[in-house]
Parts: sequence; C-alpha cells; structure tokens
Amino acid sequence: MHILITGASGMLGRKVVDRLMRDGLGGHEVSALTLVDVVVPEAPAGFPGRLDAFSADLSASGIAQQLIDGRPDVIFHLAAIVSGEAEADFEKGYRINLDSTRDLFDAIRHAHAADGYHPRVVFASSIAVMGAPLPYPIPDAFHTTPLTSYGTQKAICELLLADYSRHGFFDGIGIRLPTICIRPGTPNKAASGFFSNILREPLVGKPAILPVPDSIRHWHTSPRSAVGFMVHAATMDLGKLGPHRNLSMPGLSATVGEQIEALRRVAGESAVALIRREPDATITRMCEGWAPGFEAARARALGFTAEDSFDQIIRAHIEDELEAPR
Amino acid sequence: MHILITGASGMLGRKVVDRLMRDGLGGHEVSALTLVDVVVPEAPAGFPGRLDAFSADLSASGIAQQLIDGRPDVIFHLAAIVSGEAEADFEKGYRINLDSTRDLFDAIRHAHAADGYHPRVVFASSIAVMGAPLPYPIPDAFHTTPLTSYGTQKAICELLLADYSRHGFFDGIGIRLPTICIRPGTPNKAASGFFSNILREPLVGKPAILPVPDSIRHWHTSPRSAVGFMVHAATMDLGKLGPHRNLSMPGLSATVGEQIEALRRVAGESAVALIRREPDATITRMCEGWAPGFEAARARALGFTAEDSFDQIIRAHIEDELEAPR
Repeated sequence: MHILITGASGMLGRKVVDRLMRDGLGGHEVSALTLVDVVVPEAPAGFPGRLDAFSADLSASGIAQQLIDGRPDVIFHLAAIVSGEAEADFEKGYRINLDSTRDLFDAIRHAHAADGYHPRVVFASSIAVMGAPLPYPIPDAFHTTPLTSYGTQKAICELLLADYSRHGFFDGIGIRLPTICIRPGTPNKAASGFFSNILREPLVGKPAILPVPDSIRHWHTSPRSAVGFMVHAATMDLGKLGPHRNLSMPGLSATVGEQIEALRRVAGESAVALIRREPDATITRMCEGWAPGFEAARARALGFTAEDSFDQIIRAHIEDELEAPR
Repeated sequence: MHILITGASGMLGRKVVDRLMRDGLGGHEVSALTLVDVVVPEAPAGFPGRLDAFSADLSASGIAQQLIDGRPDVIFHLAAIVSGEAEADFEKGYRINLDSTRDLFDAIRHAHAADGYHPRVVFASSIAVMGAPLPYPIPDAFHTTPLTSYGTQKAICELLLADYSRHGFFDGIGIRLPTICIRPGTPNKAASGFFSNILREPLVGKPAILPVPDSIRHWHTSPRSAVGFMVHAATMDLGKLGPHRNLSMPGLSATVGEQIEALRRVAGESAVALIRREPDATITRMCEGWAPGFEAARARALGFTAEDSFDQIIRAHIEDELEAPR
C-alpha cells in the first residue's frame, strides 16, 4: 500500500507516520510512503519500503501532479497554514489552504479520467468551519459560518471534497478535528495555546499562564485520538457516509476549570499551583466565540471514538510524550 | 448612482433593470448602468444616464478588473450557468460559477486596497446549496450539503462573500432564491420547469405536462418578489446582518396539488383541464430531494417579503406578464 501525507512534518503528520509504521493500515503493510511538507519530513526509522520525503510549496505549479504520479492508494491531506497566518496574509491563506487543495483534487480528477485512479482522500478539516453564535452542543446539521479566513478555506475544501467524491473522482472524507489537547512541544503563540500549556507545562514542573476564566468551555481531543480518527477515516467503509462527506469528530467538551480539576487528580496540587492567572480580555473574547462542543452523533455511529474525561487526555499525554518519547 | 449587473440578459437581470428604471434605487436615480452577460444585454428604453452594455465571458482574463474600473456603487452579481450545464460540464461550471465570482471579488479587493473602494455586492445564491435529507421547514442554521456542482459552487461563493465582507473589502449579501414561479417565457428543459409550465401554459389556453405526483412540496417565489429581494438587499442597512451574510429568502411552500387548486380558483376548471399527467420517475425522484420550504425567519425579520398564497403568485404573473408585457 502506497500512502501520501501532505503536511507530514506537522505534529499530526508525524504521529500518523508513527502509527502507520507500528500498525500498517487496515491490515495492509505500508510498502511506499510519500511525505511532503514545507520543511523536509523526517524519515521514519527502519522503514523497509520505498520512501519519498521532500519539501515543496504545495501551491507551486506541477507539485500536485507530481504527488499523484505514483498513484498513492490513500492520501492524508493535512497540509495547511494556521489560522493566525491565514488571517494576517489573506492571499497566502487562500493560495495554500484553498488553491493547493483544489490543485490536488484536480490532479486526482485528471488521473481518474486517464486511468480510473480512485484513491481514498482523508482531509483534515477543523471546528473552525463553525462560527459564533453557536449552540451547545452543536448538532451535526448545523451551518458552517466561519469567522476566520482559515475556517472559510476549510469549509470550502469540505464542499469541494464532497462534490469531487459525488462525481466519483475519488473517495473522500473530511474530518473536523477538535482542538488538539495536550499539544506536545513548547508553548506557542496561538491564541488557543493555553488549553495545552496549563496542563503540559505543570506536568513537567514548569509554570503556565491562563489568560481566560475557568468557565470557558471548549472542545478537545488528544493527539492519540486525532491519529485514530485519521486511521479510521482511511480504512472504514465510506459507503455508509452517503453524500455527506464531512464529519464533526467526537471529543470532550470541558471547561478550563474541569481541565484544572483533572490535572489536580492526575498530578496533584503542586502541579495546579504552577498555573498563573493573567486575564486577557482579547483572548477571552476570542474563546467565547469558539465551539463549546458537538453532538458528533454521526461520527460516533460510524465508529469514531475519543476520550470521555480529561483525566484520560492527560494520561494519554503522559504515556505518549513523557514515558515513551518518540 | 452607478450600478453593475452581471447576468443582465437573464430573466432576473432584465427585471431588475426594469425596476431600477422605474423606481431608481433607495431614493437615488441611476446615473450609470453597466450591464454584462454572454449575450449583449438589451439597452433599457429611454435611459438618460451612461450605459455600458456588452457581452463578455466573465471568466476571461481582465474582465473582472474592467467591470470594476468604473467603481460601481452597487453590484448585482447574477451571472451563472445553470444547474444542468454545471453538472454536465464540470470544468465550465467551476470556471464560470466559482472562478468568475472569485475574480470579481478579488478585483474589488484590489480596488479597495488601491483607493478604499467599498461597494455593495448583492449575490444571487440558490436553495440548491441545500441537499437531501432536508427537514420541513428548513431552519436558518441548517447546513449546506449541496448535491449538485451548481449548489456546491453557490455555497462556496457564499463563504467567499462572507469572508471578503468580514475583511472589509466590500459590503456583501447573499440571497438564496427560492424556485422562481411563474417563470415567464416558454417551457424549457430544466427538470423543475413543470412548476411554472402547469400554470403559465394553461393561463394562455395551452396544454402542459405534469411529471410528478400532486403531493410534491416545493419552495416558490414570484419573479416580482425575487426582484424585490434584490432591491431590498441593495438598499437595506447591512449592519443588522452581522457576519452571517447569506440569507434564505422567504417564499411560499406549496404542493403541486395546492398550485393546481390556486389555478382553479384564479382561471377556472378549463385551465386545470389543460394539465396532462405524465408521471416521470426520474424527475419525481429528483424533486423529492429538493427543498420543501424554509423558515426564513432571519430574512423576514430583516424586511424581506414574499407571497402568502399561490393565488397571489398567479395574479402577479397575470399583471406583470399578460396584462403589462414588457
């Protein structure tokens, strides 16, 4: 089985590669792996198959065609520039997040016309396709009214994915990822970074800043579950999906206060004491517009699963990042 | 006031021109009119202002820029190829219905950057952004899961319109038009044509074919109301819209049986006798996936109005088409 991953150097991309190396995909061994990102993706240790890992600007002319030349069986399309950058650089956001995706989809369409090529395409979408005012929980049939260019680009790609799949050009599924928590690594400047920072940093004895009230409710899933979504999307029977190809994933709806209580249970009072409250009105206002939680009834019925408690999310982080660093 | 209309040779475009000639727009006289379509738009009789009416392929390079050069105050963007053609010619559908719209929006964005240009943009969207399964009535917050490429293209343009408006490049509003009934002219090959044919033809003593059961429920508005939506969208205070720029218009939800009863009341038994039932399973199946009706609560609250009965719709046709032909 030949697998292509765009955005393979990102957090999710690297973890998907790790999982494929460990488990294969749907009972198949991975015989060929094409990894692409703006920085050269790391080669997986000891991979015996054919590896093609390279850096490229996905929006450059001819790149989409090149990615499809090897006719990968499964494509994980994870590449995107993040929300803040897409908002600040309007043209780059549309070029990378929308035009590159359409180029990829069109390259597949042309290959389909040429030789019947018909890969599985797993697209990483986002809860950013939703925009306030939002109910809680958000039903599966709720409209997409994004309030960022990033969310707009993801919502447009979802529509393209559904239409190209309906025409039979490929077999696509869009995965609306919750906010990933606990995000490994170091604190970054993303406005949502604190959701992870207030857990990850205290777990290793470091301080973290909390800019919002404990009452803020948001929608989370672990990196481990996010990888699980990708693998399930790549292997499940898509006949059950019908024409509605984009799914809000299951996750855990929790307040910041509930996150902190879970930290207390797992790591004790000393960890909680490392959280410093520094209220930030701008970040708080942004958070209030974010998705508080989804029903995700369709995705659950289709076999997608996530954590039931923040204790599990924290333990997954300890197991995957602190006890068994990659 | 300078007004640009794309798709100006179409049924709606011509009627919008007529209304502007009669009433002006929002208390302003129309001093300049730019009309563009694939066939040269008819010049309105006796228009004393500056008229620029020409044929163009909107997707051709430089056309969008040319349309914006005169800095129209209000843009009615009505141009599109129809659903059947967009489905049959995938690339043409995306080129005309999506890329031309994005070109137009980008031309405005560049003009905005150059000199602060900030027009009102009224975009003709469609209930085709919705796809089965559909509840009745469809709430305003229902998701867009189109089942045609045409509907996909309209849904994408809605997302672009909202994002470009949010960035302040223009002041946009998207109008999801119900099926227009009674559509003037001659019977066409559109699968939905019978909704108009079974009224329009018997009203002038001609036979019409009904391919679906009387129980089929659909969502209608008169050409007169559709023009009213466009004018209201061009003149209302968009500050009330917030970031949700696309509105499902009010209309009349009626079964085919209810259409026929209205015809009986307005034109008598002899008219109804001209309807010949020729059941068509394919058309019936298509109809069953179409929108049965919308709440349209937001649009109504914002002052958009439509007919309350099919008798009114039929009378509007008699007044506007049969008694006062244009």
